[in-house]
Amino acid sequence: MVINENERIDDLQYKGLKIIQNKSGFCFGIDAVLLANFAKNMKRKDMVVDLCTGTGIIPILLSGKTNAKKIIGVEIQGESAEMAKRSVELNSLQGRVEIINEDLKNLKHIIEAGSVDTVTVNPPYMKAGSAIVNDKNKMSIARHEVCCTLDDVIKEAARILKTNGELFMVHKPERLVDIFCTMRKYKIEPKRIRFVHPSVDKPANIVLIEGSRDGKEFLKFENSLYVYENGEYTDEIYEIYEKEKEK
Amino acid sequence: MVINENERIDDLQYKGLKIIQNKSGFCFGIDAVLLANFAKNMKRKDMVVDLCTGTGIIPILLSGKTNAKKIIGVEIQGESAEMAKRSVELNSLQGRVEIINEDLKNLKHIIEAGSVDTVTVNPPYMKAGSAIVNDKNKMSIARHEVCCTLDDVIKEAARILKTNGELFMVHKPERLVDIFCTMRKYKIEPKRIRFVHPSVDKPANIVLIEGSRDGKEFLKFENSLYVYENGEYTDEIYEIYEKEKEK
Repeated sequence: MVINENERIDDLQYKGLKIIQNKSGFCFGIDAVLLANFAKNMKRKDMVVDLCTGTGIIPILLSGKTNAKKIIGVEIQGESAEMAKRSVELNSLQGRVEIINEDLKNLKHIIEAGSVDTVTVNPPYMKAGSAIVNDKNKMSIARHEVCCTLDDVIKEAARILKTNGELFMVHKPERLVDIFCTMRKYKIEPKRIRFVHPSVDKPANIVLIEGSRDGKEFLKFENSLYVYENGEYTDEIYEIYEKEKEK
Repeated sequence: MVINENERIDDLQYKGLKIIQNKSGFCFGIDAVLLANFAKNMKRKDMVVDLCTGTGIIPILLSGKTNAKKIIGVEIQGESAEMAKRSVELNSLQGRVEIINEDLKNLKHIIEAGSVDTVTVNPPYMKAGSAIVNDKNKMSIARHEVCCTLDDVIKEAARILKTNGELFMVHKPERLVDIFCTMRKYKIEPKRIRFVHPSVDKPANIVLIEGSRDGKEFLKFENSLYVYENGEYTDEIYEIYEKEKEK
């Protein structure tokens, strides 16, 4: 196992799982942890695909949180995909977790239409034109819609999902209109939603959405998740991180 | 002023405003009060139209909360519209508030396209097929999409609104996908949203939405509004009702 000089191994403090990350690159955040936790209730576990997998945090967490048979992570950036592959080895998940280094728009010959039970995705949040994005650097690709748009992501999820297959997505609330309209466009009906607020008195800054391929129209709201209370993580955040609260 | 035997006059406890309601009919609820409060920040106040106005609660509240020049309430049900007209007289709002007894799908010759600054609406929440609705009784028409659908409401709002005119709507969160997709369909962009929860630990059960005719894509989330805390109204609810908290 090669760990490069600019890399570190982070202990996920969950079932002994670890991940390799670039010290100066895009590291996973609370969004990925929340998505894995939200998606752990997946009903269809045979074949899971994580789009925009980055360094593979979602597949690695899902390997511990679910009994999914096969989890494929798709990542366009070679360097991230390569790190993800090494993290899979580090956790001895070969066979169960597979990383594919490919543009999600080019999966037609790799993942068959209607073959996937569950798709997870933590896509780039910001529109390409919404900030100063001059170059296709690694950080921009992870955060901005430089290489794939929300439309690309949902279109591909819809293509590979079986009927009633589930999509789990984490995103920014400000994009909610785009998300809902694009999901409907590709016949993935939003079924369950949870907002995450920094605290009770602040607006939501993260949204978790479950959609169902060809599902019926009805959106269930879950109670909101608050991250901090009196400057400390709330009990539910401690539970999600499966950490003991310091007393 | 005629008050029928089955009616009562309710004091809105706000600037001396009153409303006539049917003792056994559909009475206004917190939704209407929250919508009027949410809409009071309207920027364009010259010509306001309240669709599905019922007994006129929104126009009457807006007459006190804003300096809108003209407020037209549109109601399909003759009995409600007639009560609304009497409430307008009761509050001496003739000239400023006008009630039209008409189907909102038949306004073409009454309200000119692109002539309205602001539209407010507290539409029927439930789809016609979503519960047992056998007859076109008054309660069903107020609560279910018997006489007009969400599509009808937003389509008509879009027709009468000026460019950048504002739509303020209160609805059920479970219909949020329908609301967003229908607003986009008719070029009213959702711009501001606020969820209302019974309490901090419960999911939202009311949603307030502001849309802008031909507006740019960007949805601003406001902090959530919680109605109860420890079995009592929260301070913000007291403020909205402009009542003194009992001590």
